[in-house]
Amino acid sequence: MKIPFNKPYMTGKEAHYMYDAVHTGKISGNGKYTKKCQKYLKELFGFGKCLLTTSCTDALEMAAILIDIKPGDEVIMPSYTFVSTSNAFILRGAKIIFADSRKDHPGMDEDSLEDLITERTKAIVPVHYAGVACHMDKIMDLADRYNLFVIEDAAQAIDSYYTGRNGIKKALGSIGHLAAFSFHETKNIISGEGGMLAINDLHFAERAEIIWEKGTNRSAFFRGEVDKYGWVDIGSSFLPSDIIAAFLYAQVENIENIQCKRKELWNNYNNSFCGILDKVNKVQLPFVPEYASNNAHMYYLICSNAREREKLIDHLKTDGILAVFHYLSLHKSKFYEDKYEGEKLEVSESYSDYLVRLPLFYELTEMEQDKIIKSVLEFYNTYSIEEDNTHSLRRKVYK
Amino acid sequence: MKIPFNKPYMTGKEAHYMYDAVHTGKISGNGKYTKKCQKYLKELFGFGKCLLTTSCTDALEMAAILIDIKPGDEVIMPSYTFVSTSNAFILRGAKIIFADSRKDHPGMDEDSLEDLITERTKAIVPVHYAGVACHMDKIMDLADRYNLFVIEDAAQAIDSYYTGRNGIKKALGSIGHLAAFSFHETKNIISGEGGMLAINDLHFAERAEIIWEKGTNRSAFFRGEVDKYGWVDIGSSFLPSDIIAAFLYAQVENIENIQCKRKELWNNYNNSFCGILDKVNKVQLPFVPEYASNNAHMYYLICSNAREREKLIDHLKTDGILAVFHYLSLHKSKFYEDKYEGEKLEVSESYSDYLVRLPLFYELTEMEQDKIIKSVLEFYNTYSIEEDNTHSLRRKVYK
Repeated sequence: MKIPFNKPYMTGKEAHYMYDAVHTGKISGNGKYTKKCQKYLKELFGFGKCLLTTSCTDALEMAAILIDIKPGDEVIMPSYTFVSTSNAFILRGAKIIFADSRKDHPGMDEDSLEDLITERTKAIVPVHYAGVACHMDKIMDLADRYNLFVIEDAAQAIDSYYTGRNGIKKALGSIGHLAAFSFHETKNIISGEGGMLAINDLHFAERAEIIWEKGTNRSAFFRGEVDKYGWVDIGSSFLPSDIIAAFLYAQVENIENIQCKRKELWNNYNNSFCGILDKVNKVQLPFVPEYASNNAHMYYLICSNAREREKLIDHLKTDGILAVFHYLSLHKSKFYEDKYEGEKLEVSESYSDYLVRLPLFYELTEMEQDKIIKSVLEFYNTYSIEEDNTHSLRRKVYK
Repeated sequence: MKIPFNKPYMTGKEAHYMYDAVHTGKISGNGKYTKKCQKYLKELFGFGKCLLTTSCTDALEMAAILIDIKPGDEVIMPSYTFVSTSNAFILRGAKIIFADSRKDHPGMDEDSLEDLITERTKAIVPVHYAGVACHMDKIMDLADRYNLFVIEDAAQAIDSYYTGRNGIKKALGSIGHLAAFSFHETKNIISGEGGMLAINDLHFAERAEIIWEKGTNRSAFFRGEVDKYGWVDIGSSFLPSDIIAAFLYAQVENIENIQCKRKELWNNYNNSFCGILDKVNKVQLPFVPEYASNNAHMYYLICSNAREREKLIDHLKTDGILAVFHYLSLHKSKFYEDKYEGEKLEVSESYSDYLVRLPLFYELTEMEQDKIIKSVLEFYNTYSIEEDNTHSLRRKVYK
C-alpha cells in the first residue's frame, strides 16, 4: 500500500523530553511531564481539571466509577461509536440504551434522547463524532431537567468547539460534567495509546485523583494534606508512564502547527469534492453545523449504498490508497444483539454500511493527496448507481 | 537527599527503539515491540502466553475478568500487599479474604489458607513478596483439591524461581493459572508504568486477547481467523502504547546484566549485615527459603519495633539516605477496616510497622552503598533497644 490510512507523526522533541523525564529520576505516573501536559491542556481549553490516563477507554471507566454507576443504571449513548464508550459503563453493571444517529451527521440524534430517558437513567454520553460537536445545549437541558450526568466522549474532539445559544464558544470536553479524550495514534495529538479525563464538575476532583491513583490518597499525601497515604476507595492504575506524557508534551506544544496542517488537508479534500460528489454523485460530504467547529480529525464520504462503498474502497486500493470504513453499530454487535431491546436504528446502521474515511495525517504530501482526490473523482466519473442497481453482484459496473 | 530510594535506569537503547517503533508507522498497542517483548519473556521464563498491559494492576484486572469473578465470590490474598491486588477483584464484586503473613518472611502463610476457604472461594492470589516465592506446591495442591484458580501476583518477581517437591525449578509467574507482572519504575525491569499478564492455563488464551483488545476479536481478525472484527465481550484497553514496549524491550534484552548488578548489590548488603544485625541487634534479615531463589528485587530489614524503625529511617535521612517502609496491612485500611470480618493478622501488621527498605538500584555506586551500610551499622552500634524501652518517647536514645 503506497498511501496508508494513517501515519503517526513525531514533532522531533519526543525523545528529548523522554530522556529528560528519565533524568528527573521519575518515569512512573504523575511525574513532571504528566503535570505539564495536564496544566497546558487545562489552560488551553478551559477544562476544570485534567488527569492523563493510559487510554480514552480508561478515562471513560474513571467517569463511570465517579458517577457511581450501579447494576441496573441506564446510560444513553449513540450506537454508532467505539466499543469502549459502552464497555466502560457495562463493566460497572450499567444497561446501555442506544440512540440513533442524525441524518445529516453520524453524531447521535439529540431530539431522540428524551424518549429514551427512564427513572433508571443516570447519564448521557454524547460522542462528538469526527470532532464535530453534538448540540450540547439540548443535551445539557435534558440533563438539568432529569438530573442526569453528561460525560462527553471527546475521543476525536481535541481543539474543537461548540457555540451555545448564549453565543459563548466553549471547547468540546469543557461542557459536560466529565469528558474523555484519546491520544491514540490515529488522533490529532498522539502518544500511541493514551487519554485524558477532563473534570468540569469540580465536586468530582478529589475523588477522581484517588481513583486515578489506585484508590489511594497518594496525591493528597504528596501535597502534604494527609500524614500518610493508604487505601481509601476503589480505583485502578489509570495514570500513564511519564514517558508517555513526555512524548505527548512534544505534541501538545505543537498543537497549533499540527492543527493548521490538518485543516489545510481537510479543506483540500472538501474544496475538491464539494459541488461535484454531493451534487452529481449523491455522495454525502461531512456536515459541520453552525454551532460546531471543525478540528479536521477526519475526512469521510457517505456513499449511497454498501456496494458503492465497497467498490470505492477497492478502486482506491488498486491505486495504492488505503481508505477504511468505521464503526459497526453496537446494538447489532455479536455481544449486544441479543441484549438489545430498543427500536431499529436505521440511520446508525446506514453509517456502518456507507461511510468511508480517507487518509488524513500530518505527513500526507500534496502529491499524495492529489492522487487520492484524483482517484476518488475518477471512480465517481465512471461509476453509475443506476447501472450498478441493474446488474448482478458479480458484474463489473464501470462504464 | 543525596541517595534516593530508587532511580530508574536506562540501558541506552530505549530512545533508539522508540524511534524505530514510530518509523514502523504504528505506536498504538500490539505493535512490533509489544510482540517482541511478549515473545522474549515467554521464551525466557516458560510462560504459556504473554500480553503486555499498562500496569500490573491492569493485568490483575484482566485476570479477575478472565476467571469470571461475580459479586459475592471470595478471593484469598495476603493483607500485606499493594492495594491493586485487592482492587482488581473488588471492581468485579469479589469479597476479599485476607491471610496473615509468615513469621520468617512477609509472604502469606500458606498453612493458614485452608481455613479461609469456603464454598464461595474462587481464587487464591499468592504475592511473591520481594520476588521470593510462596510455597507454590502447597498452594497448587489446595487449588486442585478445592477447584480454585491461582493468580500469582508476581509484580516483584521477574527472573525469580521456585523449585517444587519434584525437583523442577520453574520461573515465578509460570506456575499459577495466570500471573501478573509489574514494570513500574521501582521494579528490576521497567517502563515507568507497565505490566504483563502471563497466561499459563491456555484455556484462557483466546478470551484474554479479546478482553485485552477492548472486548473485540481484533487480534483474530489481523491473523485472518475472522472476516471482520467487532464487539464480542466485555473488556478494556489493557494494552500499552508500543512506545512503552519499545522502552521495555531495551530493558528485557539487558535483563542478565541488570540482574547481575542487582544481585551484587543485594549480596553486599547481606554480607555486611549478616552475623551482626541479626545476632547482636535482633534485626530480622531477608529470608529466602530453600525452594526459592532471590531476584534481588528488594533489600529490607525488619526492626524490633516501630520506634526503632522510625529512628533508623531518621538516622539514615540525617546521612542523606532515603529508606522507606512498605505496605500498610490492607485489612486495617480506611477503605476495608469496617468491611473486615476476619481474625487479627498480627504478623502482617508487624511488617507494616517494622519493615524498612534500603536503596537498591542499578546505578547505586560502591561508594554510595558503603555509605548506606556504614550508616546502618553506626545506628545499631549506638542504638539500644533496652535503653529505648526505658525512656519516654521524647528522649534521645543514642548512647
